Amino acid sequence: MEKRKLILVSNDDGIDAKGLQSLIEIAKKFGDVFVVAPEEGQSGMSHSISLTKPLRVRYLQKTQELTICAVPGTPVDCVKLAMNQLLPAKPDIMLSGINHGSNSAVSVVYSGTMGAAIESSLYGIPSVGFSVLDHSPEADFTIPEKFASKIIKNVLGEGLPYQVSLNVNFPKINAADFKGYKICKQTPGVWKEEFEKRIDPYGREYYWLTGNFQNSEPNNSETDEWALLNNYAAIVPVKIDFTEYNSINLLKKWDL
Amino acid sequence: MEKRKLILVSNDDGIDAKGLQSLIEIAKKFGDVFVVAPEEGQSGMSHSISLTKPLRVRYLQKTQELTICAVPGTPVDCVKLAMNQLLPAKPDIMLSGINHGSNSAVSVVYSGTMGAAIESSLYGIPSVGFSVLDHSPEADFTIPEKFASKIIKNVLGEGLPYQVSLNVNFPKINAADFKGYKICKQTPGVWKEEFEKRIDPYGREYYWLTGNFQNSEPNNSETDEWALLNNYAAIVPVKIDFTEYNSINLLKKWDL
Repeated sequence: MEKRKLILVSNDDGIDAKGLQSLIEIAKKFGDVFVVAPEEGQSGMSHSISLTKPLRVRYLQKTQELTICAVPGTPVDCVKLAMNQLLPAKPDIMLSGINHGSNSAVSVVYSGTMGAAIESSLYGIPSVGFSVLDHSPEADFTIPEKFASKIIKNVLGEGLPYQVSLNVNFPKINAADFKGYKICKQTPGVWKEEFEKRIDPYGREYYWLTGNFQNSEPNNSETDEWALLNNYAAIVPVKIDFTEYNSINLLKKWDL
Repeated sequence: MEKRKLILVSNDDGIDAKGLQSLIEIAKKFGDVFVVAPEEGQSGMSHSISLTKPLRVRYLQKTQELTICAVPGTPVDCVKLAMNQLLPAKPDIMLSGINHGSNSAVSVVYSGTMGAAIESSLYGIPSVGFSVLDHSPEADFTIPEKFASKIIKNVLGEGLPYQVSLNVNFPKINAADFKGYKICKQTPGVWKEEFEKRIDPYGREYYWLTGNFQNSEPNNSETDEWALLNNYAAIVPVKIDFTEYNSINLLKKWDL
């Protein structure tokens, strides 16, 4: 008899998020599910870790099939704790999300959902971050609930290259209009931040961060933004090597 | 007469860090300095942004030559606010640090210092993150104080490719042993986390994150870890595209 799979699940919207519940239901079909998720929302927390405060673990459920614990830290903290202290064995796969909101294009850099998936991939665990293009707490997860299993099946069957994770974004459309998956590259472009400046009741200025993404290659059908705009779910394979190799020879000519 | 340069400075150790003072002194030689730094230490904050709390700005100094303001947010928040709201003009260069502690190898991913430099590079500003391999609040900045100007001069003279920043780490050695700069790639490897489990005075468990870096290519002289161990300062050109291009064709064969 085949050993039951062990599936680590985390997210960045916190332990109470609807998207996490949705992902747990999807994961259950594949084996034992072990959830380690932040106590509170951690959107925009990127790859941050807690260096100045200790972490505690609160168990909400603890059975063979489903363990759920909450950690008052970042998504990456959750993965590190899971991998080093909490999991009974090395997981077969790690799933992050389902995030309420897009993590396509450069948003992958700010994303706590992908922070968790990338961290997990560093341990050599095949890892997938799922997001839907809907920020609402009541976001509709019909499309991932219907189609995310296909990806999980492939990852469990085929594996992923060492330290490679997947960034999967689903469009906000009716399920009937969904065209399936497209393998993509991260869309190049920048966020144009338009802080909203306000005055508090005591006359002091403060700023809210907002912003719009400016796509540098809006017509490039290889990009994740293009796929999403054309009713596909975008799958970008992700790996963390920040080195810009093209610049190495250029810099070697400098007078240093 | 040449226009005076405008230099944006930030860090992740916070407005009171010795390394920030050191970097301000270095920057002053090149033009007007505009500092926007976190109110408090933000080590390990990576590329995180504040989405659930508004930001305020506290001016500590405001002259033509030197402006200093503190923001109760992350390093990336500081850069975004500087670029969108605070700076009188687009800066000629952005300098981050000098960080107390290493940001070589995969630490670049967790680093708030490099978060700030990378964010600034996304706006097309040539940006450099400086770190020394000494976590102490009283770290010795003699080597960067003597040699960082060389890099700044090159960046101002030659520029950097669009959205490329530099991750510069200085070894913890006597200045007499310093061998100069080496252009490197990010060392591959992983952190082996060894959480320290403790019991609080009330009998409850908690965890402190610690860890050791395991170098996958310890003998590769192209890597930043090798350079640092051999008394060089390591310069890694950095760019943010998380796409793992080698995996795209592989994934296209999946049944999705």
